Amino acid sequence: MKEIIAVIRMNKMNATKKALADIGICGMHAMKVMGRGKMQVDFSILNELGAKEEIGGLMAEGLAEGARLIPKRLLTILVQDGDVEKVVDTLIKVNKEGHKGDGKIFVAPVLDALRIRTGEQGEAAV
Amino acid sequence: MKEIIAVIRMNKMNATKKALADIGICGMHAMKVMGRGKMQVDFSILNELGAKEEIGGLMAEGLAEGARLIPKRLLTILVQDGDVEKVVDTLIKVNKEGHKGDGKIFVAPVLDALRIRTGEQGEAAV
Amino acid sequence: MKEIIAVIRMNKMNATKKALADIGICGMHAMKVMGRGKMQVDFSILNELGAKEEIGGLMAEGLAEGARLIPKRLLTILVQDGDVEKVVDTLIKVNKEGHKGDGKIFVAPVLDALRIRTGEQGEAAV
Repeated sequence: MKEIIAVIRMNKMNATKKALADIGICGMHAMKVMGRGKMQVDFSILNELGAKEEIGGLMAEGLAEGARLIPKRLLTILVQDGDVEKVVDTLIKVNKEGHKGDGKIFVAPVLDALRIRTGEQGEAAV
Repeated sequence: MKEIIAVIRMNKMNATKKALADIGICGMHAMKVMGRGKMQVDFSILNELGAKEEIGGLMAEGLAEGARLIPKRLLTILVQDGDVEKVVDTLIKVNKEGHKGDGKIFVAPVLDALRIRTGEQGEAAV
Repeated sequence: MKEIIAVIRMNKMNATKKALADIGICGMHAMKVMGRGKMQVDFSILNELGAKEEIGGLMAEGLAEGARLIPKRLLTILVQDGDVEKVVDTLIKVNKEGHKGDGKIFVAPVLDALRIRTGEQGEAAV
């Protein structure tokens, strides 16, 4: 079992949910987070805040001072090992616009899973 | 150390917190998530949306189109390895109603923990 | 790659974000959680609820009954293995006041990471 964590744009939530259901993945949890990737900078906001326009690098003063967290959806999807690839591929297909802020996907290990209603454990509970 | 993640009904939060305190587990974090398990479908909503009544399988059109995420509580509890079983058992005891939507429990590995105030590390910080 | 999870006071969020940017760590996600550490008890609330004043231990009746979850920020920061130590040190420096409720830091394993826009994988995606 693996936990796939995807941080995506708010407005991609419905399309992502639909695309996952289309490949048979229905179980998931979503929450609102405030996030920022490595390079995600909204320069118009920075400028309003008086940051220099000629931002040279990641550590420019304007970035350090003015960097804002953006509302995002964080999705967690528990999958069987054999489903990791198709879920990741689907997440990319739906969420890739080619712009900064498209989001990230992580894969984390899960040691055990259990369905409370039935007591099913392991992959059967996924 | 392990992280136990439980997704439970909103209205089970207080009883769960109380039951965990009763076995000496007081540290936890809770957040609101929107979630859905594998088979959790509210057919009345599906029908209102015009889905077919004779839904045959998981991939029925109605499910893919109309599946809704339900508000849930997601609990994360950091425990020492020796406490995993009693925490899981307690979570089941409190949350098992025998209906769909009772929730799920995952166990994930944690490499290290640290209490900021004291600098305690590892199991001592749990 | 590792996921560093820090649960901190709400009012430490901005200073933490700034301190992390200062060491070159810009990517993170933050969410509001309700949480409680092992020993975090607001005795004034307990007393109002009629708990005994002479609370002797963790399992005192007052604690089990009246323990309240406190609003906290939960930060998740995906880092390369080599950055774990400096991120943890920075989190401690900013958040350590020496009082209960300063928070906790966990380190969890991450098997893979992927930047949706570029398809970069592994440490390159962090």
